[in-house]
Amino acid sequence: MITCDTLIKGGSIICMDEDFRILDHHQIAIKDGKILAISPLDDPKYSAVQELDASDCLITPGFINAHTHIPMTYFRGLADDLPLDDWLQKYIWPMEARMLTPDFVYDASLHAAAEMITNGITLANDMYFHIDRIADACATAGMRVIVSEAILEHAFSGKLSQIRDSVRRIKERYQDQALVDCALAPHAIYTCSREILAECAKVAAEEGWIIHTHLSETKVERDNCLKEHGMLPLQYLHSLGFTAQRCIFAHGVWLEEEELDLLRETDCSIAICTDSNLKLSSGFAPMAQMKARGIKTLMATDGVASNNNLDILEETSTTAKLYKAWNHDPLFMPAREAFAMLTIDSAKALGMDQITGSLEPGKAADLCIINLNHLQSQPLYNPYSHLIYAISSHQVRDVLIAGKQVLKNHQLVNLDPAALIDKAKYWKTKILSEIQS
Amino acid sequence: MITCDTLIKGGSIICMDEDFRILDHHQIAIKDGKILAISPLDDPKYSAVQELDASDCLITPGFINAHTHIPMTYFRGLADDLPLDDWLQKYIWPMEARMLTPDFVYDASLHAAAEMITNGITLANDMYFHIDRIADACATAGMRVIVSEAILEHAFSGKLSQIRDSVRRIKERYQDQALVDCALAPHAIYTCSREILAECAKVAAEEGWIIHTHLSETKVERDNCLKEHGMLPLQYLHSLGFTAQRCIFAHGVWLEEEELDLLRETDCSIAICTDSNLKLSSGFAPMAQMKARGIKTLMATDGVASNNNLDILEETSTTAKLYKAWNHDPLFMPAREAFAMLTIDSAKALGMDQITGSLEPGKAADLCIINLNHLQSQPLYNPYSHLIYAISSHQVRDVLIAGKQVLKNHQLVNLDPAALIDKAKYWKTKILSEIQS
Repeated sequence: MITCDTLIKGGSIICMDEDFRILDHHQIAIKDGKILAISPLDDPKYSAVQELDASDCLITPGFINAHTHIPMTYFRGLADDLPLDDWLQKYIWPMEARMLTPDFVYDASLHAAAEMITNGITLANDMYFHIDRIADACATAGMRVIVSEAILEHAFSGKLSQIRDSVRRIKERYQDQALVDCALAPHAIYTCSREILAECAKVAAEEGWIIHTHLSETKVERDNCLKEHGMLPLQYLHSLGFTAQRCIFAHGVWLEEEELDLLRETDCSIAICTDSNLKLSSGFAPMAQMKARGIKTLMATDGVASNNNLDILEETSTTAKLYKAWNHDPLFMPAREAFAMLTIDSAKALGMDQITGSLEPGKAADLCIINLNHLQSQPLYNPYSHLIYAISSHQVRDVLIAGKQVLKNHQLVNLDPAALIDKAKYWKTKILSEIQS
Repeated sequence: MITCDTLIKGGSIICMDEDFRILDHHQIAIKDGKILAISPLDDPKYSAVQELDASDCLITPGFINAHTHIPMTYFRGLADDLPLDDWLQKYIWPMEARMLTPDFVYDASLHAAAEMITNGITLANDMYFHIDRIADACATAGMRVIVSEAILEHAFSGKLSQIRDSVRRIKERYQDQALVDCALAPHAIYTCSREILAECAKVAAEEGWIIHTHLSETKVERDNCLKEHGMLPLQYLHSLGFTAQRCIFAHGVWLEEEELDLLRETDCSIAICTDSNLKLSSGFAPMAQMKARGIKTLMATDGVASNNNLDILEETSTTAKLYKAWNHDPLFMPAREAFAMLTIDSAKALGMDQITGSLEPGKAADLCIINLNHLQSQPLYNPYSHLIYAISSHQVRDVLIAGKQVLKNHQLVNLDPAALIDKAKYWKTKILSEIQS
């Protein structure tokens, strides 16, 4: 008899392993944060301190949010129904310039982490400012995060050496905190000089770090790149050494065939931000062309200011449906494939598939227990279909990250939502008084 | 002092009246199923048997689902990731032929009504079979419904006189049931002969009944119509007298300019079924061209088999975002306009704006109380923005229809969800054994 920390019993286990196994009448044994075994329910080998009854539930890998700006929660709905340029330049950037203090970032990040956990997200790949405070907030909430400082021209111009230091400092500071990692994040080709971009590629190559950047979000960005550099955005980044690294490119809406060919043979992936791209009218991603080339496409919420929530299951549902119509093919992106984008594909893209993204012995216990006893998920014929087309995020009943329960029967374990809402109202007042001043 | 049945106190009242008023610090006095008054909170004129505290809530008109097939809940996810023709002809129609009994329809309709109420829908415009059982189920649930028998060639061929009778019979049967009405619903141009369509137009004109039909859902439908009748689908229906009546046309994806011109001056509206149109890859509706002409566009879930849920707020959110990108215009369909499509515009299109669709004295108390104390709706700057871009349907806390509370603190008043889920599982077993036989 092996004594575990937690036994999850019953339900349908959606493994997302190589064989896409779905296991009924099984139990998941969790010990020291990891999945020790997935064995038949009547296997007497395991006992546990805590048992979770997952009858009438789906147990899935935790969801991965491949591109977001965690602390933007407090800008939710502040400026809607605007084009991207106006939205950024007239509202978001000025408000960021005035509001972003470490305290603001910490509080807004706690709010986001709480919202993400409630929605089943166990890992977020982030890009923003005051990233130590984002890391602290996520650690407090108990969720995994890859933080990265958004590298902008004005902050790093003439201080190239600080690029390496900025990442190393965070990596060292959180080296004992298994939930936190740090990537290198030049913001975009239109906010960084050639020198900064080249330095990022060089540092990433030397250190083996992931690069996280925006790419081809708008037509204007692509057109300007062609004009200024005589190359398409990814060709430009390629010429500076980017594609030699593991890159997460956010958006990729306006990528051309030549750029997709460049992506095909690399370790680079596209984080698809459907809601944001639709809402800001940025466009439709060349999803079919990417899928045809085997390019990894991941699901991402982008920041709350352009989404306007952190509901990544809804985002995936919209994406799976949208690109059927966009590609005139109702067979495109079937439910299982869409769910892979939300889980194992993202883990692979982030180089974290040894740790998370599927339910397999040896991996961390990062998982969601989703209650099927809701009207809108009954009857059930096919769990993948329900995950993508029918289930809502509020059916996520429990969430475990590295074996620790962070959502328990819909209640956050480490955070108090009422206190978070009070904080949100406090900061809203501050933001409104800034706008009026 | 006037004694009312219910007083709803506090919150922000989203009136959706002509001036789009948003009233804070007010109360809604409800008597005999109707809104008696909306007055300041400190107005001492009203007392009530029941008080509902709506602090930290939005109070909105109930949502209107302008096109659905209520009893299809039990086919949820039965056959996904298929083209419309295969889906209809290989799965849905054969299954309907074998399964549809009055009991099946009643149970499935109760399930749908429960799901719709939970999602804030107070009125559904339906088309299906065994419609008396649909009406019974909705009446039991306490929700408004316009039922209509789907008129198909094989059922009505050679029995033209039964078309009028089929509607009249239901209208008479439910004349004392204020929540139920009946429309005339030729299924589509491709499932009804010219004779049947012409008879429907004639009967509707003589009786003053609403026509509810599918129109231009797929390219195939349009192309075949051109081939067979030498006209576009709406031109064909127009030639048979349809546009002289108040019509609700579902889908309208492939409408051409000439057809939109025909719609402009009529009492006809288009029920937009975004999720279904995306999932079945039917296409994108000419929303900008419709809006430019002032054609009323309404929100609809279509049936659950192609959606796969009855979450119309999510549907509206997707629609508002999608058509921004589709029309290359981030200012297109701003949040307030989208919310009007879900409420007052639909009521107008259905000729029911004297009864429902906005919160105004004299109208029925059909309303939702939406709890804002959720992480994903805080902070709040603009209620319309949150309704369309941030809020999830599970934040709908209370629903009143004709003044009667049908959802109370997230619990259905007239229905037992556990019993409904048991029924769903029972019918699923039957369906699966039919498939295997």
